Amino acid sequence: MSEAHVTGPATRLEAKALPRGPTEGPLTSEELQLSARNHSMPLEALRYDITPLGLHYLLIHFDIPIIELADWRLAIGGHVARPIELTLEAIRSRPSVTLPVTLECAGNGRSRLHPRPVSQPWVTEAVGTGLWTGTPLVGLLDEAGLDPDAVEIVFTGADHGLEKGLELDYARSLSIADARREEVLLAYAMNGQPLLPQHGYPLRLLVPGWYGMASVKWLTRIEAVTKPFDGYYQLGNYHYRSGPDDPGQPVRRIRPRALMVPPGFPDFLTRKRSVPAGPCRIEGRAWSGEAPIERVVLGVDGNWIEADLDAPQGPYAWRRWSCGWEAKPGEHILSCRATDASGQSQPLEQNWNWIGVGNNMVQVVPVTVR
Amino acid sequence: MSEAHVTGPATRLEAKALPRGPTEGPLTSEELQLSARNHSMPLEALRYDITPLGLHYLLIHFDIPIIELADWRLAIGGHVARPIELTLEAIRSRPSVTLPVTLECAGNGRSRLHPRPVSQPWVTEAVGTGLWTGTPLVGLLDEAGLDPDAVEIVFTGADHGLEKGLELDYARSLSIADARREEVLLAYAMNGQPLLPQHGYPLRLLVPGWYGMASVKWLTRIEAVTKPFDGYYQLGNYHYRSGPDDPGQPVRRIRPRALMVPPGFPDFLTRKRSVPAGPCRIEGRAWSGEAPIERVVLGVDGNWIEADLDAPQGPYAWRRWSCGWEAKPGEHILSCRATDASGQSQPLEQNWNWIGVGNNMVQVVPVTVR
Repeated sequence: MSEAHVTGPATRLEAKALPRGPTEGPLTSEELQLSARNHSMPLEALRYDITPLGLHYLLIHFDIPIIELADWRLAIGGHVARPIELTLEAIRSRPSVTLPVTLECAGNGRSRLHPRPVSQPWVTEAVGTGLWTGTPLVGLLDEAGLDPDAVEIVFTGADHGLEKGLELDYARSLSIADARREEVLLAYAMNGQPLLPQHGYPLRLLVPGWYGMASVKWLTRIEAVTKPFDGYYQLGNYHYRSGPDDPGQPVRRIRPRALMVPPGFPDFLTRKRSVPAGPCRIEGRAWSGEAPIERVVLGVDGNWIEADLDAPQGPYAWRRWSCGWEAKPGEHILSCRATDASGQSQPLEQNWNWIGVGNNMVQVVPVTVR
Repeated sequence: MSEAHVTGPATRLEAKALPRGPTEGPLTSEELQLSARNHSMPLEALRYDITPLGLHYLLIHFDIPIIELADWRLAIGGHVARPIELTLEAIRSRPSVTLPVTLECAGNGRSRLHPRPVSQPWVTEAVGTGLWTGTPLVGLLDEAGLDPDAVEIVFTGADHGLEKGLELDYARSLSIADARREEVLLAYAMNGQPLLPQHGYPLRLLVPGWYGMASVKWLTRIEAVTKPFDGYYQLGNYHYRSGPDDPGQPVRRIRPRALMVPPGFPDFLTRKRSVPAGPCRIEGRAWSGEAPIERVVLGVDGNWIEADLDAPQGPYAWRRWSCGWEAKPGEHILSCRATDASGQSQPLEQNWNWIGVGNNMVQVVPVTVR
């Protein structure tokens, strides 16, 4: 066996410095590496009411932790009257709720921003809808008995790593009012099966209507605190910031978005679509964490056509839409745009911010009709 | 609702021309788009004997087809005495075999090549091990009765699209001898569950020991032919070519490779590892489609240490290895290298070819010990 040191091309990739802020420069190998780890949902999976296992998007900040169920406990403590420690079995024996919930990564669409914030480089598919089963958090908070001076609940996961030089476990908080909402679950099953390791096995928080960062995975600790939580993922990240010195506003609920199943069939390399000429039906899904979806329009070369909406699946899941289109030979640009009951519509131009969050610009699908 | 046309930044991305061959240029948005669709296996999942659902790598040439089981049939025909059409139920009633099988994409490692072939830009994780259940193909070939002049069997899937201007269904062939090997299965289950849509539901070919391109998904047709198949994915792709004019040699069996679970914990953005000082145990998996794994060595700053091998799981699945290491503070480069019973070892430098296939250069993991 050769004693040679490994000096091959792989090590060359490590040498380049990362841009220190948003950039118009080329994609970095670090971004590609994140893209390889963090799965997005192939857009044809918009056909399903409930996203099949393995197609739901995944954003994993550090490594997927290996958790042995026999060793695992959920601790509920801090400013409570009666701290609790629970096995998964004990949590499963509590009242259970099953809900279809659409989750989307706050950074969805980031790679298409100009300039581009350097982080997980989502294209447009960081979304999925699971059928989640769990027990309402509020029941366990009541069992523990929150102290009157508690202002927030902090949720800590088992995933551990470095970010911006800080060594930390992933953790986020909710206000007492948000934590007590009836739809907030401690979820142990997805699509009728125990959570897969990558979705937070054995237990995760699920905050319907909010971007995915709120739904802490691999949950180990729930703590009532008397001061607002200042952890990195609460204050140092997940804010709408105009620049490096702007503290910004916190990212919370999912902004409205519609996506379509790209019609026809793709070219392998470019994913450019070919559509047979004639009548066809474009379909997709639309969702908003702010208010129910009220309207979707399909854009064809800049003309907007009213789409039909199917009945909602529930208050926290995407809603199917479809729209007839007479496809005429030539090049066309399709797009779709959702409006929710709060009156919010998707922007036609990028809604840029420093870290590339909440970017719900309309999807654009160029097609060639033959 | 505004009548404005969508002219946002998203459309700008479409404008750049793709490099026409391997490039030292920046990653393209087309490659990023492929990376977002085609999932790789996070390396910490090397801890599992069998890859959990949703973490196995995926390479989907076109779209995941939507197949209704009631409408689906497998047709076995061409140069056979008795053409057959089978429902999934009929296939499931045949003798069944369950095997752990490691699949790897032929293009694994492509993005790290210099110059870089422009296609699915795998980093190093396009692998997974499923527990596959199916019926041996040879039984059905015997039922159909191959004509004596048949030389190959062609397998066609339902996925449809364009590649290099050709409109086609994904299709590959095997020689009669390869198709008749007892381990070649028509698989309908993975990890004890019906195939997920993205893995070929309802039925796929499984060719243990070969790179993934041989294991045709969403199988619809099996045809005995009297001339070697010249389809695009047989002749126009998946060859070891030195340049654009070299027809090259076909890609078949998986070359030996070892990968490690990157030790310690990562930095979110760079994935650079931090390892606590002291004794630790590095673990990983090694596999080869050519011959059983015989040896794995762990490289620490260019010194190779013999790793321990666990008992094999079976002839077609990866084998666990582990190796003690006394981690001393400072920067270190870890690597690992497999050798199989045919005497093949992984190269220390890139084994470059025109389309970036069969690149089994050793993995390199820089770590900081604190």
